[in-house]
Amino acid sequence: MSPTLNEIRAAAERIQPYAHRTPVLTSESLNRKVGAQVFLKCENFQKVGAFKFRGACNAVYSLTEEEAARGVCTHSSGNHAQALALAAKLRGIPAYIVMPNNAPAVKKNAVAGYGGLITFCEPTLEARENTLDGIRLESGATLVHPYDDERVIAGQGTAALELLQEIPDLDVLIAPVGGGGLLSGTAIAAGEIKPGIRVIAGEPEMADDAFRSMRAGVIIPSVNPKTVADGLLTSLGALTFPIIRQRVEQIVTVSEAGIIETMKYVWERLKIVIEPSAAVALAVLWEGKINLRGLKAGVILSGGNVDLEKLPW
Amino acid sequence: MSPTLNEIRAAAERIQPYAHRTPVLTSESLNRKVGAQVFLKCENFQKVGAFKFRGACNAVYSLTEEEAARGVCTHSSGNHAQALALAAKLRGIPAYIVMPNNAPAVKKNAVAGYGGLITFCEPTLEARENTLDGIRLESGATLVHPYDDERVIAGQGTAALELLQEIPDLDVLIAPVGGGGLLSGTAIAAGEIKPGIRVIAGEPEMADDAFRSMRAGVIIPSVNPKTVADGLLTSLGALTFPIIRQRVEQIVTVSEAGIIETMKYVWERLKIVIEPSAAVALAVLWEGKINLRGLKAGVILSGGNVDLEKLPW
Repeated sequence: MSPTLNEIRAAAERIQPYAHRTPVLTSESLNRKVGAQVFLKCENFQKVGAFKFRGACNAVYSLTEEEAARGVCTHSSGNHAQALALAAKLRGIPAYIVMPNNAPAVKKNAVAGYGGLITFCEPTLEARENTLDGIRLESGATLVHPYDDERVIAGQGTAALELLQEIPDLDVLIAPVGGGGLLSGTAIAAGEIKPGIRVIAGEPEMADDAFRSMRAGVIIPSVNPKTVADGLLTSLGALTFPIIRQRVEQIVTVSEAGIIETMKYVWERLKIVIEPSAAVALAVLWEGKINLRGLKAGVILSGGNVDLEKLPW
Repeated sequence: MSPTLNEIRAAAERIQPYAHRTPVLTSESLNRKVGAQVFLKCENFQKVGAFKFRGACNAVYSLTEEEAARGVCTHSSGNHAQALALAAKLRGIPAYIVMPNNAPAVKKNAVAGYGGLITFCEPTLEARENTLDGIRLESGATLVHPYDDERVIAGQGTAALELLQEIPDLDVLIAPVGGGGLLSGTAIAAGEIKPGIRVIAGEPEMADDAFRSMRAGVIIPSVNPKTVADGLLTSLGALTFPIIRQRVEQIVTVSEAGIIETMKYVWERLKIVIEPSAAVALAVLWEGKINLRGLKAGVILSGGNVDLEKLPW
């Protein structure tokens, strides 16, 4: 089932004691550069450095005492893993995390630092799911899927909720799309609060499965995508795809060069650290494939977890 | 003459239409790491990405109409040059900038981008001063020295003024020291607003001329220092040295490794871009050579202008 605006509002109340209300930044030089009035919702300043904490926290604090006692588990390439580990730590329950063995060092260390119990596996979706199934059956832990989970989607929607409380007259709202959890939550919140607002997704050209899925009308899985935006490698889910089909105007693909240029510009001019996946949404404005000139555009900067030893320029 | 607190307050009013009131950030993980309650005054978010805009702006807007018409000039390795160029542009007057030919590309481009009229010279203090003298005599422009200038010192003091308005009960205030403009303004503002507050400077071990000058009681010039903190290469001035001797408790030197570790930590955990010179002040807490445990410590993060192609790790 698709979460409702009320469930997103309930999520906002539930996570409020734990999550940051992140700032909304603006930059005159950025506005001039892209020809729009841009409002950046800075989830790079969120706990664990990404919006993922919102969904994970909502899921963990939605559990009954009995469910919670057995812990939570998931597979994730990084940010969701950190988020779930921290949320579980805050509630005092175990978090079992299946991670691909090629995940960036900074992400592995962060998950371990939050007390997550990591099991490594081969970097394929199949290996992850098999490993996770084993752990789940043994521990009785509740699976918190990175995106195909109502509680997670409702949590992710709280970023758009906050942004629209602060800037109610946005014309358009842009989020990146990987598995579609953030995009689904964003689209529900925006569409229900402000009917008629345009919701647009940014996706790497090199991982354009969501773009192709929208065209085809069925989920086309992501097969070994190669993009600098390592948070957007996953495929849409059974829960997120219908929400996105119904509520998202279009998915705009952006080039690798555009992602890197946008990311570097934000570091240089705004002096904030964002990850490539966060730059993907802003790159929609940067590359200008669709005309959003003169509009008030909200952009969700999804996170700021980057391996500083391996920068893409 | 040393500027007074009233002159710093006047500077704050004068620059208020042009400069950002920068945010004060905190981080629980940073507090745990250094064992103090740290309040970061984020001058990396200031116009041109550094505190230098405060002093330059105060100097430019202190000129009479007649003086202003002939323009301003200076020599600077970077941030002051950008700051003066922008302040002059805002007032609609020319800014003649003498820069060393080995300044980082990002800084050269930024000065040109703000409309500064650049003359390059050899990277020695002598070459800079000779080149500047020629330009000054020809144009009649007013020299705005990067630090040894009352108007500049008063402008730099406005950062500490704002920080103490927001966090009035600081025990200690730490700033980096290069030529001493920021440190002098900080020490005057802090000492006059809150007598008894401890003012401490951070300085790179590899450019420890201020440390040695304090010991010796006379200005010991900086000779070809080699440090990653390229904003702190200059020597103390005739105006800044006596202020620092009178008002600064001590200058603490920090290692190159400590500067780089601190800088990287801030990027990774706080998700903000700071330059090595900004990390120098925080490295005083990071390295813990002097005991500031449990104190409320303000730290002025001086700027965020970094060449992203040449990171020090």
